Amino acid sequence: MFRKLLSFDEAKQLLEQTFDAKPVGVETVSISEAHERVLAQDIVAPLNIPPFSRSTVDGYAVKAADTFGASEDQPVTLKFCGHVAIGESPNVAVKNGLAAEIVTGAPIPDGADSVVMVEQTTQKGNNISVHRPVSIGENLMAAGSDIRKGETVLKAGRFLGSREIGVVAAIGLTEVVVYRRPKVAVLSTGGEVVAPGEPLPPGKIYDINAHTLCVAVREAGGEPINLGIIPDKKDKLTKALKNALGSADAVITSGGVSVGPKDFTPQVVDSLGKPGVIISGVAVKPGKPMTIAVVDGKPVFSLPGNPTSSLFMFSVFVHPVIVKLAGRPEEELPKLKAVTAKKMFPARGRRTFIMVNLAYNKTGTLLVRPVPTGLSGAITTLAKADGFVEISEKQQFVDAGTEINVYLFGKFGKTETA
Amino acid sequence: MFRKLLSFDEAKQLLEQTFDAKPVGVETVSISEAHERVLAQDIVAPLNIPPFSRSTVDGYAVKAADTFGASEDQPVTLKFCGHVAIGESPNVAVKNGLAAEIVTGAPIPDGADSVVMVEQTTQKGNNISVHRPVSIGENLMAAGSDIRKGETVLKAGRFLGSREIGVVAAIGLTEVVVYRRPKVAVLSTGGEVVAPGEPLPPGKIYDINAHTLCVAVREAGGEPINLGIIPDKKDKLTKALKNALGSADAVITSGGVSVGPKDFTPQVVDSLGKPGVIISGVAVKPGKPMTIAVVDGKPVFSLPGNPTSSLFMFSVFVHPVIVKLAGRPEEELPKLKAVTAKKMFPARGRRTFIMVNLAYNKTGTLLVRPVPTGLSGAITTLAKADGFVEISEKQQFVDAGTEINVYLFGKFGKTETA
Repeated sequence: MFRKLLSFDEAKQLLEQTFDAKPVGVETVSISEAHERVLAQDIVAPLNIPPFSRSTVDGYAVKAADTFGASEDQPVTLKFCGHVAIGESPNVAVKNGLAAEIVTGAPIPDGADSVVMVEQTTQKGNNISVHRPVSIGENLMAAGSDIRKGETVLKAGRFLGSREIGVVAAIGLTEVVVYRRPKVAVLSTGGEVVAPGEPLPPGKIYDINAHTLCVAVREAGGEPINLGIIPDKKDKLTKALKNALGSADAVITSGGVSVGPKDFTPQVVDSLGKPGVIISGVAVKPGKPMTIAVVDGKPVFSLPGNPTSSLFMFSVFVHPVIVKLAGRPEEELPKLKAVTAKKMFPARGRRTFIMVNLAYNKTGTLLVRPVPTGLSGAITTLAKADGFVEISEKQQFVDAGTEINVYLFGKFGKTETA
Repeated sequence: MFRKLLSFDEAKQLLEQTFDAKPVGVETVSISEAHERVLAQDIVAPLNIPPFSRSTVDGYAVKAADTFGASEDQPVTLKFCGHVAIGESPNVAVKNGLAAEIVTGAPIPDGADSVVMVEQTTQKGNNISVHRPVSIGENLMAAGSDIRKGETVLKAGRFLGSREIGVVAAIGLTEVVVYRRPKVAVLSTGGEVVAPGEPLPPGKIYDINAHTLCVAVREAGGEPINLGIIPDKKDKLTKALKNALGSADAVITSGGVSVGPKDFTPQVVDSLGKPGVIISGVAVKPGKPMTIAVVDGKPVFSLPGNPTSSLFMFSVFVHPVIVKLAGRPEEELPKLKAVTAKKMFPARGRRTFIMVNLAYNKTGTLLVRPVPTGLSGAITTLAKADGFVEISEKQQFVDAGTEINVYLFGKFGKTETA
């Protein structure tokens, strides 16, 4: 059942080979609920946008040929033939020598092929003097020039932000087909944890992981199902995991994967279906005591109880899987380059991630240093960090003064003002 | 009432001087709803974290002095004096010469000041041989070493992501006081717009702005109130705006601010309260025909009808205000440097924003060029852009081959794979 400690890269590769993370399904949502969802189908325009040729200025719809040779000194004079209002079908036609008054956004009347800006005309009674020639198509937006009927305007896989919602509205749709958010069950284990809000008996600590992991699931595009703290008994855990696998697309447990006598989570997970546990421990710091299983086509991640390790391993191993189950475009953490303020060492033989802070020194160099008092079990280590650096298990150390990539946490990093 | 066309910088400055954007209020939310909210009060720890000294390894709790001089060849032998389980108060005390078995996370028993890792011991009956000395405090996490009781763990103004939620859970809180999301009313005006899903009569187009602006409000941390399309009549608009000002913290209209005969939005807004319209047109492209008013302490933004201009002016003028009303930390758009593939010109005398695409050329240079067929009224121009560049009204042009800042749209830019 358990294999040797895998390297970081081997573990990532084995997970990808064993579990093919694909979108879990589709659903139809209204345009007002489509924000931050991902299109599951190409969207094809059912009409031209604009649906008709529109004026882009206030002025006069004309035949361009009628204005040729017009100048400030020698204007061309056309006859007023009516108004074109916005939002209405024109009830005039523009024949040779005629000009129809038009406002921005109004439909170009039959016969006209261009619009003269009002600033380049003078009007006297029914005579419109044009002081500058226009070319065919000038000052109008032709029907279908923005979007052509039948054109694919947005492709499946597109993340829907304000700009994309605008395209959907433009073509008159009220609903879109998006990928369903994968349901991810989150369970805490361990006899020492108590839910926040409860009294804290001696020897116990508050459960952090259920809360951090649910938020992390949401950030990755999933829908968390918080199953709370599972009592430290095999039969209770077995029942909870079966229940979780029955209702969710993926399962995350935390705690119970160390070597202590009660850490039976991996054994229980392995008993629930095939292939069972595929990764048991990864040569990585923090987060070594992690197991990953696949149970009848669903991934089960058993993360360490330590909240920093747990959340960090989530970001490295679980986040990319949920992103794929959600059909989201793959994203990279934002990163920047900074110079190491001190020598940093990887844990022997392990891919090492060090939580760091960034600050400019007096000469304007952006320096990176480990979070002070960065206790491995401390939740504050993570909360105080601006980001992290990655040191390969093959490196002996990273010397002070080395330029290195710093991966940034969150979208409102303290980095901006550091 | 209306003043001269202001420059971009003058308009930004006048808005800041006239309207002091501050958080609109606070509310208490549960920890499970606190994600992406902003703390309105400092959070002070009501207890130590960890609440008690905990072992960070599996092994034996000892007095460090008892292990001094221990080595592989000359181990120190201590007497087993009991077990310490996780999640329970220890029922043993460690006196000189004794060792208590302990698991990771369990409380350090009275008398012990350090933990020897199990790997550095051998056990024979009740004799524990220690093969390496430990120092005081080794392999344990002291009570309060992560968070001290009375310490401010998170400050007001902190955006709550997974890491911050972890800190809140760690100290056992179930609720936090956060800034209330500002309510932002969104109205579309203009006789030519029809709601998506409705039949499209000749001369009409679908309303885009209500949908894009509601999403943009949400992205800025506000709660949009979509008031839909307001008929093109003064009394209806007056009533709708009064209603909006009565229920929302800020109001956005789009359409009806050009020079057409029916564009009476600014007049109506100005009549509703003091000081009324403060900015009437800004020397900016796109988006010149925009007015900003302050009505009895609430900002009213009247954006252009053109969806690209409207959404773009939102991002430049409205987004920063909503961010402040929401109490969010100020954010900068992500940006990168790229080289212009062609000469670009500002509109004469106007701060000019050009929607652009990014792509690497064969030699690996990241080139930036205007979105092809970038019609100013086209919704697709915005949707196809990777970002935008800003050209000062004082510049004559930006030459091809110039390194320039490109501001990126969204968090899932196409840029990664361009």
